[in-house]
Amino acid sequence: MNEFSLIEKIKAILNNRIIGDDTAPIKIDGKTLLFTNDILLEGQHFLDYFPNENLGWKAISVNVSDIVASGGKPQYVLVSLLLPRNKTDQVKIIFNSIKKACQFYHCQVIGGNITKSEKLGIDIFMVGETEKFIGRRKAKPGDNIYLTGSVGDEKAGLELIIMKKKYYERFEKKLIKKFLRPIIDLDIADLIVKKASSSIDLSDGFSSDIYHISKLSKVRIDIDPKKIPISPELKLFAKKYKKNVFDYGLIGGEDYKIIFTSKKKLGYKKNLHLIGRVNPGKNVYLDKIMLIKKSFDHFSPS
Amino acid sequence: MNEFSLIEKIKAILNNRIIGDDTAPIKIDGKTLLFTNDILLEGQHFLDYFPNENLGWKAISVNVSDIVASGGKPQYVLVSLLLPRNKTDQVKIIFNSIKKACQFYHCQVIGGNITKSEKLGIDIFMVGETEKFIGRRKAKPGDNIYLTGSVGDEKAGLELIIMKKKYYERFEKKLIKKFLRPIIDLDIADLIVKKASSSIDLSDGFSSDIYHISKLSKVRIDIDPKKIPISPELKLFAKKYKKNVFDYGLIGGEDYKIIFTSKKKLGYKKNLHLIGRVNPGKNVYLDKIMLIKKSFDHFSPS
Repeated sequence: MNEFSLIEKIKAILNNRIIGDDTAPIKIDGKTLLFTNDILLEGQHFLDYFPNENLGWKAISVNVSDIVASGGKPQYVLVSLLLPRNKTDQVKIIFNSIKKACQFYHCQVIGGNITKSEKLGIDIFMVGETEKFIGRRKAKPGDNIYLTGSVGDEKAGLELIIMKKKYYERFEKKLIKKFLRPIIDLDIADLIVKKASSSIDLSDGFSSDIYHISKLSKVRIDIDPKKIPISPELKLFAKKYKKNVFDYGLIGGEDYKIIFTSKKKLGYKKNLHLIGRVNPGKNVYLDKIMLIKKSFDHFSPS
Repeated sequence: MNEFSLIEKIKAILNNRIIGDDTAPIKIDGKTLLFTNDILLEGQHFLDYFPNENLGWKAISVNVSDIVASGGKPQYVLVSLLLPRNKTDQVKIIFNSIKKACQFYHCQVIGGNITKSEKLGIDIFMVGETEKFIGRRKAKPGDNIYLTGSVGDEKAGLELIIMKKKYYERFEKKLIKKFLRPIIDLDIADLIVKKASSSIDLSDGFSSDIYHISKLSKVRIDIDPKKIPISPELKLFAKKYKKNVFDYGLIGGEDYKIIFTSKKKLGYKKNLHLIGRVNPGKNVYLDKIMLIKKSFDHFSPS
């Protein structure tokens, strides 16, 4: 049973329609608060030989990504740290990394918890705020589909780390850094609040996440594969290791870019790419071929 | 290095005074929201042969305990589930248990996350609301000290489960149930908001938690050991297994009762026990003997 069918089961048990978006929006007086949660767990999202210097930064960023995708800015953070006995010396490194990220994203750690654990884990609960919650359910036929940056770099970066090479070329180091230290652009939140009908962040991978919009908005999505942005570094990687860039761009994961739909025709902006259109119907098509939904699983055989 | 010195280190890194209470209070417009987080992790808080039926209930209750100790009522919950591959069939049991607890405590699951993990874990993030936040820092000399129920039953219950006996006597079953399925009295929150100067829940154990009030309020605390409520079941347990009830009442843990201070003399209420007085000075004394601070560690040799 995969995560999505488990989530469907849980929604049924709780009889709760609010679950299923990037964040849960709650109106408190005049404000809309956004609540979200994402964990980095050793063995699932990183391995013990990965460098820890950016682990706190990444744990914060993956939650910021969900808040921004919903049109919000991060405000408050609780950190639940799972800490192996032999890694107490890592606490300073991890929290310094969390602190740097919180300064960068203008949010604040207000509490949390530490538990002994066999595996290291950083479970983050984040509270954001927005003028207007943007979910996954209101894409409309005729809307344009925008993507906020290149996809697939992070998956390539992860594979490069796992190769444990003694020497990495410059483009390889760039890809690795994208995986270890993702940076979320907070300004995208303003664009989403003002212009988007629906929005989602690409944490599970393009082909998996875009289906959430199609399914929840009950629309067909047509993507022009030529418009999907691929970085020069990923092209070099694909050439060197004889890979297909679309195996990375479409079924990569942890991209932490955002796909949003808008009826507006948005002018050219840095890192904003018009990649397709919403149509009546269902499912997602690339050049009229149905996209295979394939989810990213960090350390499973693909 | 223990959890408390780690927390001191983290507070220094984050340069943040808000960390260190049961909950973090945040004022949003006219309201004070309370944020807290607590996890139940296999191997730390329970073992794999413990029955799972009440695991969700307990995970919710331990967070409700923190909210109530701060004078609040629970409102919203995010559930971060760490799920071993071979335990996906437990999801229904766990979430039904969470659902029952949320119905009982009048709160609502609004989101969360599922991650594959070697060990089962339920990491709960809870949001509460209060008219007025009650922390650990404002106990004053002359205040009375109240305890909201008997202590030590839960530690005895845990030890009974670990004995794996084929047959349990009735009082033993009661102690086990107290450990597996703690019940928090929401009405205590109203009393705390109206009457308390400081408050803390006993999750780490009486002797450990009461020192937080002494240290943060900069006061001496005098406890009359004869006034500490011990249940009839714990007395039977101590007699049968040749134990000292105070080894359970004072250094037990997971009691989920609340100690609060109040300058008011509160009349007799069910489960409300006047156990001592706040004085000028520092540290905690039982019959003028300084109380040894000893923290509860579930599965470490004691």
